[in-house]
Amino acid sequence: VVFFDLRGGLKLALWPRASMAHDTGLAQAAPSATECMLAHNVGFKEEVDAVIVQARAAGAVIVKPAAETFWGGYAGCFQDPDGHLWEVVWNPKWPVEE
Amino acid sequence: VVFFDLRGGLKLALWPRASMAHDTGLAQAAPSATECMLAHNVGFKEEVDAVIVQARAAGAVIVKPAAETFWGGYAGCFQDPDGHLWEVVWNPKWPVEE
Repeated sequence: VVFFDLRGGLKLALWPRASMAHDTGLAQAAPSATECMLAHNVGFKEEVDAVIVQARAAGAVIVKPAAETFWGGYAGCFQDPDGHLWEVVWNPKWPVEE
Repeated sequence: VVFFDLRGGLKLALWPRASMAHDTGLAQAAPSATECMLAHNVGFKEEVDAVIVQARAAGAVIVKPAAETFWGGYAGCFQDPDGHLWEVVWNPKWPVEE
């Protein structure tokens, strides 16, 4: 397991799916990319492109290249090597604290 | 879609699975409870019981009743009406800011 310390005391913990099944007593189900998505909001439009490039170089599969969104933002999506879905997004109406 | 404002600028957004598939261009896969789990850390052991009671009353299915954990904490797990997995957990080594 690996823990990433995020802003405000939040932690992102990555466990093997088998461990989650064992820990909860549930049967392990098949992976499902449309179950949840981690959205990474960035402060500048150009950062979306930079993160997508970084993700691709790290082995991610780009499922939605960075593009303007219908609501005035700019976003792209990728799946990491375990199939988890991530969105990298710039929303001009949600300033990101640095 | 509904947005919950969490600590430190974080938001929890709930979308229909069909919207996530549409937005990302992926085929909608079957739900999978072992794909991700939202862990809600509380500041006192008794709060775990209180939240589990509240969740059950709101329609959750308790998959792991609150109990001592092997690492010295106290935790329980439930699935919400959409099948998503939640853990309510007290970790004496991780103080929670109020």
